[in-house]
Amino acid sequence: MVKLEPPERLGMSLGEAMFTQRAIRRLRPDPVSDEDIRTLMDAASKAPNARNEHRGRFLVVRNREKIRRFAELYVEAWWAKQPEGWSPENAPSGDKHLPPMRLAEAMKDVPVVVLAVSTSPGQAGSVLPAAQNLMLAARALGIGSVLTTLHPVVTDRIHELFKLPPETEVHCCIPLGYPEGRFGVTARRPASETTYYDEWGNPPPWE
Amino acid sequence: MVKLEPPERLGMSLGEAMFTQRAIRRLRPDPVSDEDIRTLMDAASKAPNARNEHRGRFLVVRNREKIRRFAELYVEAWWAKQPEGWSPENAPSGDKHLPPMRLAEAMKDVPVVVLAVSTSPGQAGSVLPAAQNLMLAARALGIGSVLTTLHPVVTDRIHELFKLPPETEVHCCIPLGYPEGRFGVTARRPASETTYYDEWGNPPPWE
Repeated sequence: MVKLEPPERLGMSLGEAMFTQRAIRRLRPDPVSDEDIRTLMDAASKAPNARNEHRGRFLVVRNREKIRRFAELYVEAWWAKQPEGWSPENAPSGDKHLPPMRLAEAMKDVPVVVLAVSTSPGQAGSVLPAAQNLMLAARALGIGSVLTTLHPVVTDRIHELFKLPPETEVHCCIPLGYPEGRFGVTARRPASETTYYDEWGNPPPWE
Repeated sequence: MVKLEPPERLGMSLGEAMFTQRAIRRLRPDPVSDEDIRTLMDAASKAPNARNEHRGRFLVVRNREKIRRFAELYVEAWWAKQPEGWSPENAPSGDKHLPPMRLAEAMKDVPVVVLAVSTSPGQAGSVLPAAQNLMLAARALGIGSVLTTLHPVVTDRIHELFKLPPETEVHCCIPLGYPEGRFGVTARRPASETTYYDEWGNPPPWE
């Protein structure tokens, strides 16, 4: 176990990092430095986790051939998650689906993909808070990220590709890179609509 | 959808919030203000979530009778999660288990419990990053928190107690309050031990 002082490079205010953490799906191919990746991993390692047993692992993928093969599986998983009847030939319309579909197509070209994995099945509570730390730290460094998930149809091949032990579980995949677009304050549902007091459906005492 | 500017009260640096986010299990009974709770919920609502559909809900429990009944179920769930043969009469020894056991006993007296819930089964990726935002924001306000989970043995009664619709899922329960102890830099495994490059087991190019 180590104690690390907060790094100066994560000096952005918590509020700014959280309120401008846009999902960045258009990433430039420019590389992300090892120093930056290390800062992200230090941030991830600081997240709370059950009994401090550190069941979470982060697999940083930069090898171009691995990313190319991952991207093929990601595209297959993406389509498997869509409603029945959707296919690359019969693409859904609507602006909501376009950015994720484009990300699937562009995955082969991203500079880095990070897989957030647990060393035993379940353990989401010890992995996803760390993934959020990683993405907030990325925001502070000007690196774009988005949380994506796979589909059981590709699980075995993902395990094979990255030599994951059978008992591990991939919780999410996070492409990283410098953004084509810009960060900015995000549009979200107001908290008054997603918060209840004491019972389901009971509004909070503020608007 | 709303766009909110980052609140000044979340001015602590991201690094300090993350690197000093200790699990706080000993909480003072002093109340947490509605203004503070609202800031935590605003922070939670800014987390990334699948397709911005906001499948996450936060149930803020402050009613004393509800907390008392929740605490009974929490204690039962806590023991159900322990290895076979452990019971309140045959308690495990070892310092690792004591703080969580004491939290279970003290749960009835905490000022606030927040349940992080999804509106449909699964959706951990749209709920747990928001829970982490909530806990980081709590840290910035000097409010202690810890991520806890329940056990299937109490699910039906938790749903009944809080009138949760059957299709919802509780991902974690976060007691909140001012800490008895102090915040400080946390001890965690070094990121070099929890990060792999390109394949499982491959160490990163830094120490």
